[in-house]
Amino acid sequence: MTRYQHLASLLAERIEQGLYQSGERLPSVRMLSGEHGVSISTVQQAYHLLEERQLIQPQPRSGYFVAPRKATPPVPALTRPVQRPVEITQWESVLELLSSRGSGAVMQLGSGIPDISRSTIKPLWREMVRLGHLQDPRLLNYDSLYGVSMLREQIARLAVDSGCRFNADDVVITTGCHEALSISIRAVCQYGDIVAVESPAFHGTMQTLRGLGIRVIEIPTDSVSGISLEALELAFEQWPIKAVIVVPNCNNPLGFIMPDARKRALISLAQRFDIAIIEDDVYGELAFDYPRPVTLKSLDGDGRVLLCSSFSKTLAPGLRVGWVVPGRYFDRVLHTKYINTGSTAVQPQMAAAEFVRQGHYMPHLRRMRQQYQRNLSVMTCWVRQYFPANICVSRPQGGFLMWVELPENFDAVRLNRRLQEHGVQIAAGSLFSASGKYRNCLRINYALPLDTHSEQAIRLLGQATEQALNDGG
Amino acid sequence: MTRYQHLASLLAERIEQGLYQSGERLPSVRMLSGEHGVSISTVQQAYHLLEERQLIQPQPRSGYFVAPRKATPPVPALTRPVQRPVEITQWESVLELLSSRGSGAVMQLGSGIPDISRSTIKPLWREMVRLGHLQDPRLLNYDSLYGVSMLREQIARLAVDSGCRFNADDVVITTGCHEALSISIRAVCQYGDIVAVESPAFHGTMQTLRGLGIRVIEIPTDSVSGISLEALELAFEQWPIKAVIVVPNCNNPLGFIMPDARKRALISLAQRFDIAIIEDDVYGELAFDYPRPVTLKSLDGDGRVLLCSSFSKTLAPGLRVGWVVPGRYFDRVLHTKYINTGSTAVQPQMAAAEFVRQGHYMPHLRRMRQQYQRNLSVMTCWVRQYFPANICVSRPQGGFLMWVELPENFDAVRLNRRLQEHGVQIAAGSLFSASGKYRNCLRINYALPLDTHSEQAIRLLGQATEQALNDGG
Ligand SMILES: Cc1ncc(COP(=O)(O)O)c(C=O)c1O
Ligand SMILES: Cc1ncc(COP(=O)(O)O)c(C=O)c1O
Repeated sequence: MTRYQHLASLLAERIEQGLYQSGERLPSVRMLSGEHGVSISTVQQAYHLLEERQLIQPQPRSGYFVAPRKATPPVPALTRPVQRPVEITQWESVLELLSSRGSGAVMQLGSGIPDISRSTIKPLWREMVRLGHLQDPRLLNYDSLYGVSMLREQIARLAVDSGCRFNADDVVITTGCHEALSISIRAVCQYGDIVAVESPAFHGTMQTLRGLGIRVIEIPTDSVSGISLEALELAFEQWPIKAVIVVPNCNNPLGFIMPDARKRALISLAQRFDIAIIEDDVYGELAFDYPRPVTLKSLDGDGRVLLCSSFSKTLAPGLRVGWVVPGRYFDRVLHTKYINTGSTAVQPQMAAAEFVRQGHYMPHLRRMRQQYQRNLSVMTCWVRQYFPANICVSRPQGGFLMWVELPENFDAVRLNRRLQEHGVQIAAGSLFSASGKYRNCLRINYALPLDTHSEQAIRLLGQATEQALNDGG
Repeated sequence: MTRYQHLASLLAERIEQGLYQSGERLPSVRMLSGEHGVSISTVQQAYHLLEERQLIQPQPRSGYFVAPRKATPPVPALTRPVQRPVEITQWESVLELLSSRGSGAVMQLGSGIPDISRSTIKPLWREMVRLGHLQDPRLLNYDSLYGVSMLREQIARLAVDSGCRFNADDVVITTGCHEALSISIRAVCQYGDIVAVESPAFHGTMQTLRGLGIRVIEIPTDSVSGISLEALELAFEQWPIKAVIVVPNCNNPLGFIMPDARKRALISLAQRFDIAIIEDDVYGELAFDYPRPVTLKSLDGDGRVLLCSSFSKTLAPGLRVGWVVPGRYFDRVLHTKYINTGSTAVQPQMAAAEFVRQGHYMPHLRRMRQQYQRNLSVMTCWVRQYFPANICVSRPQGGFLMWVELPENFDAVRLNRRLQEHGVQIAAGSLFSASGKYRNCLRINYALPLDTHSEQAIRLLGQATEQALNDGG
């Protein structure tokens, strides 16, 4: 980012946060130049940029004023999915989304990829070098079926922050949270069973259920407080449901954190109907507020929660280091782990374990939480600015994913195709439903440092959206 | 190994190979000392060791003579498993076997672990260091769903040696051969289906079938020529079999290589009954004869073979780098890969790919094949020497696993328990059957460099076996 871009985004943030109110006069060019120790022309460039973005307006001879603020879009309302078990489709679209991985040309606003380029991750590289020098034969040999014990110890230690008390021996290491979920589902369900999920829900989980021949019932979910317990209870009463899968902390895609009272109520409900809970905590450590929110697992009295997580969102997805704390389902999880992958790659486990053990993880998390929170406020500002007015936008409480809901007739899948030639890609909402809902929604990743490039992509996205709506979807 | 041990094993090998015949006089101590440039006392120590091993006998005043040779035990006969679909059990025993992984105290003669300590593996460590220094962000990011393309290219290149022509794009990288098998089975079968397997068969495959709720029909298998095609045809006629799973090259546990004509016949049979073939080639590159044997895949005209393999036996199991070449089942395999683990850990893929690309793999394979072949001849010698006479022993044509069949009333599971206190462990034959067969068999790993320690373990094993038989099993 150049100096003037930096200054501009600083000012944009202040405006966003209401430090400069709509209609208020902004500091003079001279004053800002003095305050920030930059040249007059840098300030002028920054003001021009903000003017371009329609955040400020010049008044001849009296300087710049904050432009009338567009209203903040409301949050999406409680979702209303189909209330019966359905089979999952959408694999083609998921595959399309995944296939753009690694193709550098595409601005992957649709991905679930964190920023892996910050300096706080450097010790991980150092650890990799050290492990190579050490030539510890354990790296090349079969790992224990449970996973590297030093890593399991660190995971048990970290879990204390989420209110959990378990031991290294309660943990099974997996190849990413994907494997943790896949194993957990297979430990509690069989082909043909029914599982309840949030709606919208992470497409990976949906595809896993599909691959295992399990039907889902999608439960209405509120973008602020999470899965509707009332609807869930009704579903439990009506259908022979085996398990419920939730992402209660920094939900993907809606961004909410379930309030503690509702977490407790969910546990009671599951107890009453004797249903297993698969808790996906993969974004939990990225909650903007510290200390982090508690897990369902921490409230679990009788071992019915299978806690699944990984370092994919907090550290690096390429490590493929995840874990499951399966409670009473331990034995079945262990067997399924064995038949799934035998054991987990050792080097990434060792590298991650050392990274945590040496105390690099917490500073890294802090750094990333800050970045994601700042990015969110900029992204919110851009979305308000460049998108049509009649939209709803989520208020993520952590993580790096935003959910935008457009009018009913909008088609995000078609939009994605149109954007392809511009090298921009979003995640169409329909990936997150088994019954083809949310075609009018899209999910945007704001993990990476935001620059004029990203702003241009969002502007393009907004324009394309506007145009699509004018064209009738 | 000390000098005299080295000399002793050299002489033992010559005796084994018939270069010194039974009853023949061995060279004088002085002669050997001159020939090998070692001291008189070293030769004397070597001869004492061989005498202890009952390989040679001293004759007062005329030197040492080759002891009367124990007859070579015959190979095991065609197996006779139950000829109907059965459900698989044995998980407890497999878990016991796996749980000794990493407990340094145990001499793991029961494992499937290769030797990872030879100097030809050194470049792999160097590559790990280099990758750490490079800080290539691809290592930390999500990999493509198919796997690292450079690795897939190398795998396609290597496959030419096994008679195969496929492209990088035909390969899907997996977390070890375990995942390749697990995915392949799920791509062609569903819960409740029936699959045909060799008998005995790799316990990992058996457990996978069990976990997926698939029944197996175990097909009689010859320790020299492989699965009985006659019995397989009968099974195809009688039961709605979906797939057959075989390890045709350097079979685990029997060690055979299926003759080419039988491979072709197997393909025809599968075509005639329209059945998928899952080919596990994990030991194929360790065939003692070079060039390596062809795969079924290379003879596959219509894409019905799913070729599964990994670097676990040839390079290092801790990498967890495997692959599947799924032919016509590509799409289903890809979906199942996604839901199983999302993608594969990147660093181990890159390290392995570079190891192969830089030309280190072939010399390493050559080195390991030589070691395993030498070890086999020593191990065969020890088994003949220390085990009771009425046994059958496999003649492995590659790999590092030997199968020993004892009289019907012998119980290898009980033997294993008895050996525990001595820190020795074997794989009981019953792990390799779904219907509880082969309790009278055991599998021995001869991968590691053989020393007096290993010899003692085999001697102990032989004695315990003898005693168990005397005690009635
Ligand atoms: C909610 C959720 N769970 C699980 C995963 C998968 O995590 P991993 O990459 O560790 O397999 C993701 C990643 O996209 C996710 O968003
Ligand atoms: C025949 C056979 N197939 C597959 C495997 C599993 O290989 P991997 O360690 O690559 O998962 C083994 C290892 O024990 C084996 O013996």
